[in-house]
Formats: sequence, structure tokens, C-alpha cells
Amino acid sequence: MALIVQKFGGSSLASVEHLRRVAKIIAGTKNNGHRVVVVVSAMGGETDRLVNLADEVSAVQQSRELDALLSTGEQVSAALLAMTLQSMEVPARSYLGLQLPLLTDAQHTRARIIELSTGELEKTLEQNIIPVVAGFQGVSSNGDITTLGRGGSDTSAVALAAALKADRCEIHSDVDGVYTADPALCPQARHLRRISYGEMLEMADVGAKILQIRSVELARKFRVPLLIKSSFGGERCTWIVEEEERDMESAVISGIILSHNEAKLSVIRVPDRPGIAYQILSPLAEADINVDMIIQNASIDGFTDFTFTVPKADLSKAKTLVERVIPEIDARELSTDDDIVKVSAVGLGIKNCPGMAARMFQALADEGINIQMISTSDIRLSCVIEAKYGELAVRVLHDTFDLEINNNLNAMK
Amino acid sequence: MALIVQKFGGSSLASVEHLRRVAKIIAGTKNNGHRVVVVVSAMGGETDRLVNLADEVSAVQQSRELDALLSTGEQVSAALLAMTLQSMEVPARSYLGLQLPLLTDAQHTRARIIELSTGELEKTLEQNIIPVVAGFQGVSSNGDITTLGRGGSDTSAVALAAALKADRCEIHSDVDGVYTADPALCPQARHLRRISYGEMLEMADVGAKILQIRSVELARKFRVPLLIKSSFGGERCTWIVEEEERDMESAVISGIILSHNEAKLSVIRVPDRPGIAYQILSPLAEADINVDMIIQNASIDGFTDFTFTVPKADLSKAKTLVERVIPEIDARELSTDDDIVKVSAVGLGIKNCPGMAARMFQALADEGINIQMISTSDIRLSCVIEAKYGELAVRVLHDTFDLEINNNLNAMK
Repeated sequence: MALIVQKFGGSSLASVEHLRRVAKIIAGTKNNGHRVVVVVSAMGGETDRLVNLADEVSAVQQSRELDALLSTGEQVSAALLAMTLQSMEVPARSYLGLQLPLLTDAQHTRARIIELSTGELEKTLEQNIIPVVAGFQGVSSNGDITTLGRGGSDTSAVALAAALKADRCEIHSDVDGVYTADPALCPQARHLRRISYGEMLEMADVGAKILQIRSVELARKFRVPLLIKSSFGGERCTWIVEEEERDMESAVISGIILSHNEAKLSVIRVPDRPGIAYQILSPLAEADINVDMIIQNASIDGFTDFTFTVPKADLSKAKTLVERVIPEIDARELSTDDDIVKVSAVGLGIKNCPGMAARMFQALADEGINIQMISTSDIRLSCVIEAKYGELAVRVLHDTFDLEINNNLNAMK
Repeated sequence: MALIVQKFGGSSLASVEHLRRVAKIIAGTKNNGHRVVVVVSAMGGETDRLVNLADEVSAVQQSRELDALLSTGEQVSAALLAMTLQSMEVPARSYLGLQLPLLTDAQHTRARIIELSTGELEKTLEQNIIPVVAGFQGVSSNGDITTLGRGGSDTSAVALAAALKADRCEIHSDVDGVYTADPALCPQARHLRRISYGEMLEMADVGAKILQIRSVELARKFRVPLLIKSSFGGERCTWIVEEEERDMESAVISGIILSHNEAKLSVIRVPDRPGIAYQILSPLAEADINVDMIIQNASIDGFTDFTFTVPKADLSKAKTLVERVIPEIDARELSTDDDIVKVSAVGLGIKNCPGMAARMFQALADEGINIQMISTSDIRLSCVIEAKYGELAVRVLHDTFDLEINNNLNAMK
């Protein structure tokens, strides 16, 4: 008998019919002899509806009130799912974040979990009642409702699994796992049965929207096995596990990911002296803008070009901040470009195969795709290219790294 | 500088436009030098939407889950109204029932207030921030969300006014006060500027939908002056005050009220022996069905007819329960009738004018309206009549008691 945390996303809870389907999945797990703790997102579309209401009443929102507003979405779906289970004679009880409590810091709209009490849940499980926990939400030490950021229900679920020492955490949504590429872009994309936390982190970071990145970090930290499943049927799923639990013969590259979320800023002809990077980037850090890739060209005549990327949504704010610095550092001008994408190859094998980067650059060059920026990690190779080549690049790289063929011999244990 | 509790009903909060109008009323009160505590209902239509969702997922709902679900309506409007005020540079902060806390017993969907802590609100008022409290909801001692029943936000508002020793509690909705009759039924209806708690209680009890009856009881108990106002403009309003604060020359009858909420059950030919009433009515009491008027005919040949009314919504349940008793008490049969209405005249003067009842019965008889049942209190006369005569009866009685003419000389103090 395992203890399983099952998290259901908004697309799995979009209507009363969806709620019934989800309730059947939960009841089935229980009937198989397992103990279940359920975590829910808001019903599909509900968070957007609430955000739109907030936008209508006020251009600038206090984040404390926004959290009080948005957290109702998960409260509604938790209560309704508990009712649905009860109507099927499955005892269930809904919980808010503040009823556990799931204690967070006071950073509204992106709070971090400080402590999670499981006493109430354990009592409920002992009574053979299924707890249905509203995800995404917590409570600060002064009693205010907080939220964990978009996709935060994933993090709620993993945190609960870790605190309860659950055997696994299942993430149910409208996708049945992780693929070697987005099947919508690349019909040859192959389903992956296992992937490591590290690869999933890199994938989430560069744009795969399957999981909130913090939930994967948390799962790795507390060694919670994650399972990606679809609530719409089908047997396929992807396990996210520790590196050593992947199979010996795994492929070098696990997947190709395309991200549209980048914008590029280039400070042109900066006098090349120490402290330039700090002067340009520190106002962005203060404004909480995340700088991703950074390139500084070799100096010519004592001048250089300084280029970096930020999230597309932050471009105009970043532009304003950097333009203020231009005269201070005697640069010639600032140019910006948001007509770019980032294509990445992620795989544990990259660190042991020095030729991988060269193969990637060659494949893109063969198609006449110009690489504007490059960044790499142990297990990731990323290139910024012109937006119109994004889908072509995914298909080319998928082909180059032979991802279509199941070239690793791993099978489910 | 007064301390004023302002409560806004769902019809006053039906859209973003409505929220802006309400925010302006609040800001205006503050700008006049008053301190304000706001209490809100759910946005118009929202509670019905949530009830429908609950009905869809489950025929029989656990009331704990229903409360968790329904309380989100007020949470949403409190957060949105606080945002709206902030957008107008009026500092505001939303509060849930459980954040005050407003402690109740554990009777879900109709909880009663046990204790209301005002420390948090007083701290907020001292900082010149307007608290916007989600009405209708509280928290039980074991941390579950409870609700106070439909219209419970009125009770939340009066309870807050009492606990804060506020100078008055304003109830803002889409009506601008209490009338001598429903203007939709009786175009001659006259607006009342003052009415006593006792009269308002009788009116609420017999069907006037302006206020939850518990809120009036609470206001009388703690001597909180109530003011009924419209949030849609206009200067008119009705004060609900203590009897002695009404004017000397007040009219004998303050209003005529029509209630469609009755159904009649008659147990025919019961052997007239002690304990009959108990045997018939105790199963209803156990099932929490409210019995209103009771009539037992004089005994003929040792048999009697026993007739009583229940809320129309409870008729079929009541019927089932009483039918079970029929053989036990050797009665002949049960007949039921929901094609009835109750018409009532309410006024402080009734207790001092013994002729009032006779005038009422005469006026109905003159129109050929048969009176099926009668009940009276110190300040109320009620008759059950056939439904089709309801509106006619209201107009006739309004005329009989000269309510059209401002026959009392009272003016606003």
C-alpha cells in the first residue's frame, strides 16, 4: 500500500464532467489499496477570469489583495472535487493552504514555503478520508493568504509529498508525459518513459511548460519520484527520477525545446573597462528582471558590444533602465530585438560527449540558420536564433540527434 | 467623526462598474471625516453560480464543503473592492471571516456567531486603512469555514458594528428603504423614514426581503442604529431605531407585507386527545422544518382538524413526515395546499388599538376574500388567503389603514 499525492491541473478540472473523471481516477487509486492525498489547481480558465477582473478594477494591484482573490480559484475546485468524491461514496474533505497550514514567507504572488504541517492530513488519512488540498496557496506568519506563483500547485503537491514522505507524486494534466520535442512542432517527437530531475529542470527552464520549475527542484532535493500522467486516459506516462535510476543506455540528448520567451538587448560600442557589466546589469537586478544569456564581444580599439537576454515581458522595462545607463558609460547606443527564439538540446550525455555542441552548430549552419548567441551548461546547449527559424531548428536538431529512433535500449523497469 | 459600518449587497456589487460606484460612496464617507469599516456580500449572481456548480456535482452536499465553496464569493468581492479603493488612492485591506476571526459554532450553512475579535480591525483603522470584510462567513473553533445563512452579510455587518461600538450600520442595496407596502404591488406605497426594530422584525419575518431577520435581532440587542440606503443614488433612506426614538405621532400601521413562502397542511378528523399536536409536529421539529401558524378547530364528536403552515420549500418533506403519523394517531387523512399567501399588517400601534384586527378582517370580507388562517402578535396581524387575492389584499389594506397619506406628522429629527 503506497501513499500517493495526486495533483490535477486546471485543464483536468475544466468542468463538472472533468471533475467526475478526476474523481474516478482518485477512487480507482484508492480501490487499488493506496492512500491518496489530492492537490488541485483552479478550474481551467478560472484564474484568467479572476486576473481579468483584477485588471479591470485597478491598473496596479496590491499583491496581498491579488493573492486573496486568486486563491479562491483553488478553494472552489477543492470544495467541488471533495463534493464530487462524496457523491461517489468516497469520503473526502477539502483543505485550504491556511488550514494545514502551509506556511510561507510574505512575498505575495511568489511566496516560498517555510514549513508544512501534516498533522491534520495524517489524521484525515487515518480516518480513511481523502484530503483534497487547494494548491498554489499558503499563509504568511501574519495570517495573510499567499500564493506560490503560476503553476504553484505543482510545488504544493511536491512539498506535500516530501512532507508526508509519499511514495510518489503524480502530476495529472492534459499531457501524458515528456517528449523529445513538442509534438505540435515535430511530429516525429518520441515519448520519454524516464528522465532525470536535472534534465527536467533544464527543460522547464528553457520553456517546456509541463511543470513549475520549483516543483522539480523540490522533488530532486527531497528525492520525491515524480510521475507525469494525463487525466484524459491512456497508459503513457513519464517518470522523473534520479540520474542513477535512468538506464545505462540512455540517449545522449533527451529533448529539443523551443522557447519564445526571450528578448535581446545590445549595448553598442561601450568603452571596454572593468565594471561595465555591473553598471549595465545592476539596475535590472534591482528591478527584479531576470537576465539569462550574456555575451561580451572581444574588444576592438578599446570598445566592445555587450549583449544579453531578458524575458520578453520585461523588455520595455529593461530598455528604459538600460537607456538611462548609456550616457553614464559612454556607450554609443542600445538596440533591442524581440524577434528571436531560443532552441535548446537537453541531455545527461552532453557532459561526456564534447562533440555535441559542434554537431548542433553544424546542423543549424547547414540550414542557413544564423546563431546569434550561445549558452551551455553541463547538460544543455542553447542557441538564440531568428524567430522564423524556430520550428525548423527543432526538427533539424531532432533529426541530427536521432531522437526519433528509440536509440536507447532502456525499457520500464 | 463617527465610526460607520457600511454593508453592500450583491446587487450593489454586480460588476466592475458597480464596484467603482460603491468605492466612491466609501471614499465620500471617509472624506466627510468618518472612519469606515466595509462589509461585502458576493457579487450579484455569484452565489447562485456556485450553488449551481455544487448541485451539478452532487445531489446531497456536505455542508462543510458547501461553506468552503460559497465563502469564496465574498472573498472575491472583498479583494476586488479593496483593489478598487486602492486604485482611487484610498488605502484599503480585505479580511476574511477567519482572519478577524469571526468565531461561530460548527453548524455549517447556518452558523451562529460566538465571538468577534476586533483587534485586527482597530489596528487597521488606526493606520487610516479601510478594512473591507468578507461578509456571510466565519470560522468554527476547529478551523473550518462556516457561513451564516443567506443574507448573512447583514448579520456580519451588524455584529461588527456592535463589536466595534460603531455609531451606525448602513445597509446599502438596490432599495432605498422600507415602504408601507411593496411599490411593485401597490403604487400608492409610501416611503418610511423611521421604523422600530420590532416592526422591522415582524416585517422581515413575514416576507420583506430587505434584511436578514437575525441582523435586526442583533441590532436591537446591541442598540445599533440601522440605516437602509440605496447604492444607486438618491437621498432617501430608512432608519431602524428603538421604539422610543420613533415619533409620537407615528401611524398605527407601518406597512402591509405579502409573503408567498407558505404552504398549508391539514390533518383531517383527528381524535381530539392530549398530545396530538406534539405527535404531529415533533417529527417536523426534528427535521428542522419551521412551523409557523397553527390552528386546531373546536372539537366536534371528539374529532378535530389540525392545520398548520410550513415554508413552501419544505412542503414535500413535511408531507412525507406527517403521512407517517396519520395511522398512528387514527386521523382520517392529510390535505395540503400551497396555493396560498400570507398578508400581514405590521405596526407598533396595533397593541393599543383593539379595533385594528376587526378592520382588517372587514376590509378583506368586503372584497369577498376568504380568510383561511389568522395569527397575530403585539404588533402584527396576519391572514392566510388564496394566492390569487394576494395583491388585491395588499392594496385594500393599504387603503383601509390610510397608509398612502402621510398620516403621521413625523419628520426626520
